[in-house]
Amino acid sequence: MGIDPGLTRCGLSVVQAGRGRAVLPVSVGIIRTPPDVELPQRLRRISVAVGEWMDDYRPDVVAMERVFERGNVSTVIHTAHAVGVLVLAAAERDLPVFMYTPSEVKKAISGNGRADKKQMTSMITRILGLSEAPKPADAADALAIAVCHCWRAPLIARTEQAHVALQKGKP
Amino acid sequence: MGIDPGLTRCGLSVVQAGRGRAVLPVSVGIIRTPPDVELPQRLRRISVAVGEWMDDYRPDVVAMERVFERGNVSTVIHTAHAVGVLVLAAAERDLPVFMYTPSEVKKAISGNGRADKKQMTSMITRILGLSEAPKPADAADALAIAVCHCWRAPLIARTEQAHVALQKGKP
Repeated sequence: MGIDPGLTRCGLSVVQAGRGRAVLPVSVGIIRTPPDVELPQRLRRISVAVGEWMDDYRPDVVAMERVFERGNVSTVIHTAHAVGVLVLAAAERDLPVFMYTPSEVKKAISGNGRADKKQMTSMITRILGLSEAPKPADAADALAIAVCHCWRAPLIARTEQAHVALQKGKP
Repeated sequence: MGIDPGLTRCGLSVVQAGRGRAVLPVSVGIIRTPPDVELPQRLRRISVAVGEWMDDYRPDVVAMERVFERGNVSTVIHTAHAVGVLVLAAAERDLPVFMYTPSEVKKAISGNGRADKKQMTSMITRILGLSEAPKPADAADALAIAVCHCWRAPLIARTEQAHVALQKGKP
């Protein structure tokens, strides 16, 4: 499951990793909470909606975009509130959470850490073999994060195995 | 209930508002989550612990310190993750949440928005009629936030009533 976190718009996606670099799209969508609703109710809506996705699709793992430290501080704080709730939803279901920075996602998908939105959407459409760009447009980010994890996961697993082997080899 | 939010240390307090400016202490404590534990597990521990406090003490309202936008960005983001989880716990129990900035709390308690920790602890000890400073030391902040709300709540209620009266008076 890929999550592009946000308080006003939160992108969700589910993909299935196949052989090699094959990734199949399963579902994609957006949780929206209007800015005129108070924070507690917005966070609750996000919590309920992401919980339903997790319970419906039962993902093995959740990949999420790390909060981007630059930019408007108030937006960063709002997004970080949403991340708290999203990470908690995963923790309550014992789902491992992996975080990637925006540039890690861009680099994994397009080979360029500074790829623009149009390039990213076009790459994701091609990678997932979609007949047209994913809708809503923001949802492409959630798919990109999920694909990024599918491609990075084998490397993460190998690194962990190497660590374990090293630890075992120690006197 | 007063909450001084944090990921590593989160201060919790419960007070009972009395007549006029009288406030009685009920309970105070700290939720700690060690930095070497992963974020999902830390947020889950905070969620469980604050939920237990809310279910045990059944407060009417939750007052919380607003995330301070200055300072180390990484600390701000960590605190904002915890705030997301704490606000969600309140929302899930239909408890209203009120946020105060650190200087609002300091001003309400000591009359000085820039009061230092020592002054604040001494004021809180006196206001609550404690025989010694609250322990652990950090918990004084959670008590200060709760007292701040007790003193501000009548004003907030009057302002809301005035708003309603104004709305009703409109053609």
